[in-house]
Amino acid sequence: MSTIRVGVIGAHGRMGSEAVKAVKAADDMELVAALGRGDKLETLVEAGAEVAVELTRPDSVMDNVEFCVRNGIHAVVGTTGWTDGRLATLRGWLDASPSTGVLIAPNFGIGAVLTMRFARQAARFFESVEVIELHHPDKADAPSGTAVRTAQLIAEARREAGTGPQPDATTTALEGARGADVDGVPVHAVRLRGLVAHQEVLFGDAGETLTIRHDSMNRGSFMPGVLLGVRRIAQAPGLTFGLEHFLFEDEHGTDAG
Amino acid sequence: MSTIRVGVIGAHGRMGSEAVKAVKAADDMELVAALGRGDKLETLVEAGAEVAVELTRPDSVMDNVEFCVRNGIHAVVGTTGWTDGRLATLRGWLDASPSTGVLIAPNFGIGAVLTMRFARQAARFFESVEVIELHHPDKADAPSGTAVRTAQLIAEARREAGTGPQPDATTTALEGARGADVDGVPVHAVRLRGLVAHQEVLFGDAGETLTIRHDSMNRGSFMPGVLLGVRRIAQAPGLTFGLEHFLFEDEHGTDAG
Amino acid sequence: MSTIRVGVIGAHGRMGSEAVKAVKAADDMELVAALGRGDKLETLVEAGAEVAVELTRPDSVMDNVEFCVRNGIHAVVGTTGWTDGRLATLRGWLDASPSTGVLIAPNFGIGAVLTMRFARQAARFFESVEVIELHHPDKADAPSGTAVRTAQLIAEARREAGTGPQPDATTTALEGARGADVDGVPVHAVRLRGLVAHQEVLFGDAGETLTIRHDSMNRGSFMPGVLLGVRRIAQAPGLTFGLEHFLFEDEHGTDAG
Amino acid sequence: MSTIRVGVIGAHGRMGSEAVKAVKAADDMELVAALGRGDKLETLVEAGAEVAVELTRPDSVMDNVEFCVRNGIHAVVGTTGWTDGRLATLRGWLDASPSTGVLIAPNFGIGAVLTMRFARQAARFFESVEVIELHHPDKADAPSGTAVRTAQLIAEARREAGTGPQPDATTTALEGARGADVDGVPVHAVRLRGLVAHQEVLFGDAGETLTIRHDSMNRGSFMPGVLLGVRRIAQAPGLTFGLEHFLFEDEHGTDAG
Repeated sequence: MSTIRVGVIGAHGRMGSEAVKAVKAADDMELVAALGRGDKLETLVEAGAEVAVELTRPDSVMDNVEFCVRNGIHAVVGTTGWTDGRLATLRGWLDASPSTGVLIAPNFGIGAVLTMRFARQAARFFESVEVIELHHPDKADAPSGTAVRTAQLIAEARREAGTGPQPDATTTALEGARGADVDGVPVHAVRLRGLVAHQEVLFGDAGETLTIRHDSMNRGSFMPGVLLGVRRIAQAPGLTFGLEHFLFEDEHGTDAG
Repeated sequence: MSTIRVGVIGAHGRMGSEAVKAVKAADDMELVAALGRGDKLETLVEAGAEVAVELTRPDSVMDNVEFCVRNGIHAVVGTTGWTDGRLATLRGWLDASPSTGVLIAPNFGIGAVLTMRFARQAARFFESVEVIELHHPDKADAPSGTAVRTAQLIAEARREAGTGPQPDATTTALEGARGADVDGVPVHAVRLRGLVAHQEVLFGDAGETLTIRHDSMNRGSFMPGVLLGVRRIAQAPGLTFGLEHFLFEDEHGTDAG
Repeated sequence: MSTIRVGVIGAHGRMGSEAVKAVKAADDMELVAALGRGDKLETLVEAGAEVAVELTRPDSVMDNVEFCVRNGIHAVVGTTGWTDGRLATLRGWLDASPSTGVLIAPNFGIGAVLTMRFARQAARFFESVEVIELHHPDKADAPSGTAVRTAQLIAEARREAGTGPQPDATTTALEGARGADVDGVPVHAVRLRGLVAHQEVLFGDAGETLTIRHDSMNRGSFMPGVLLGVRRIAQAPGLTFGLEHFLFEDEHGTDAG
Repeated sequence: MSTIRVGVIGAHGRMGSEAVKAVKAADDMELVAALGRGDKLETLVEAGAEVAVELTRPDSVMDNVEFCVRNGIHAVVGTTGWTDGRLATLRGWLDASPSTGVLIAPNFGIGAVLTMRFARQAARFFESVEVIELHHPDKADAPSGTAVRTAQLIAEARREAGTGPQPDATTTALEGARGADVDGVPVHAVRLRGLVAHQEVLFGDAGETLTIRHDSMNRGSFMPGVLLGVRRIAQAPGLTFGLEHFLFEDEHGTDAG
């Protein structure tokens, strides 16, 4: 097996430095470039990078990805900020370089992606569903973006299946007790010293409940997903939006459009 | 060992019929009377009841307990509605019958009582604490009375220990996401088909969390507490408020006053 | 919408009597026959049953299913004991009655079926996996059949994906501490008064864990699965083995062969 | 408030370096000495240390503690290996220096200590109890020492209360399924990549269960316990064995003898 030649863009950031370590530790990869702010993108070409891992910021990601696509370097992108307009621009670049692949993943955590997938699949079989997310108390937003996204996917699946509104006989409540309402799905946010990032999806029907829980202990938990993206992207020309398309073959659409 | 002669007042109600079954099944007790609405209290005396289990309603409990105390029958009372005024009246009756004991227990569930006790004891050692209660969706109030009481006990213990406010950096939140605020303790109420009555108390500090969870599957879970009350009340003259005083010897005060 | 005419075979057993109640309560079904031991199968034909729910025992199920298939009555079967030989015999009957459908479901609990499906799907993405099942202490076998089956499905998925053996540095252990070994997957069985039937599948990889938990509180939890089978079987001629084929369209194979 | 002058012995070890950080970060303490292997103990005296935190190894702890006691420096000791003989020797030193205090704590985790205390207190109220401990897969022993100790405390409390053997109708079991038997309490050990150190104690009785769970995410979780020991040891002359004696006033005995 020949190794994959990988460059990391944003190599000194929190995620990027983890990616540098993970690529170095992977038997089937070779780290050929580690670019920080100010470093020249041309280094990727000179180093013979086949795949670039892009972990920078919304104001630099477009330039970085454009360079990669124009030079036939596949890209695995964790940076956020992808509007419809930006995606359209990216597709234009890819049309001109049809053998190049770009994976954009809002979440590289395999556990988080599986949680969302399973939650969406289970949604139509249960009368009740609620989401509890639990994080360290330094987090600024409540609920977490992942919990909101999970609730939206569940609500969508219920709508498609024609599931009615959830049963709830509450007539007397303290304000906030029943959580935030995200498309009809109650979402509760716990903030506790000692926690990192956790999420529980609880489904219930007559006589049974099903719980899917994801516990993320540290940033290292994203790296198996990044490496999986690096391994698969050369065989997936065009745009792939969401790591789930690389996890399951039955996820046909590899394009967000 | 001689058996304890027990009468049940409110024997046809939901709790009362469970109590009838539990007393019958107990090796060390004999059911000597089972009174429904309209039955005469004198039956208790004629049947030689030593202990009465009172499980009726706030509008009848005072008459029932007065009868018991005046006739020297110990009482184990699950009916609620005990105001300071009512308690004072009851103490007057007990003063006139100093060898008679009355146990009033807002909650006969041993697991629930232990949860509250442990939560109160743990409260001062942790920076963060939140309560999640989970019930079937036919419940009318949110949060549950037990969860509110648990949060109040925790808040009290934190105040006594001089613990500061909980850390919470939330700046952007959907309404309700962070739960109800009970004396500074966030309380979240989940309503899910398939559940019965459940409560989790989560404590957190640097690098560790402690969780106390109580699951109550059916009304039968209250009966071990009722039976324990019946077994102990003859040795506890006067008023005892709360089953916890019969569970632990280091709970000195046996009077709510 | 016309209602489905349903007969229950084994109507007085524990599962069967639940099925009778569930069919009666379903808006889109009509209970036209409820057969106990000794009742004549011809009643199903006379009553015009379209679907029969078979919940008897291994020694009677073959006769019952043969009667149904020969008379063009679709069958939803919960009785166990299906050897390869029995399945071959059943396929022969179905070949002669090609528009009739038979669903054999070892487990009608939708939550249990989803748990197994999700466990199988997640298996190849995690380095570690263990199963904990928890039941009431009157259960005779340990681990439960569902837990063994779940572990086997996980082991199979790991083999297919080429996942290596699980990491485990244990050198000193008390006998039994690490659970039972089911195809390389540790399975732990807890027996606790107050529990009913519960199962947890724990997956772990660097920095994250994923837990899938199923809680079954009573036999009623199987009825949504039975009703779903009744609703779908007329459109599924031939043999379907496992409720999962009716839950997800991407489960192509509808035959156990 | 004057600050407490603290020296750390074993300052470069894994626990010791955490202690150095924790003491430095505490408002009410001053780090006056940080000794590694080969450093002279006299430094503690010269630096005016009031309390020494001893986190070394069984082969050096006796010399270190002897030096502290002879010089009137209170000691907070996390090093293990305390046989009855060693404890007797230590008591001899303390008899000769009656105002000096030594705390030996097998476990400085407040959550772990609370878990054991609550488990012991709850033990006599429930028919069933089992322990599940969950750790990373690099751990060499199974079950963990903490789980074995917890089970022993529970068994002791059940014996004292005259509780009978646990109900368990298992007749057919795979080897190991029912866990290890520690004094009649089943203990299950899970080893999973992504976990750190976790323990669950499950109690069950008719219709209800009580679960106490402790999650320890990193070594930092021991530091609140170390600091609590440092703050309290000057007021506790003689030998205190176990952090629990500093957590609760009703834990009377402060001597392991």
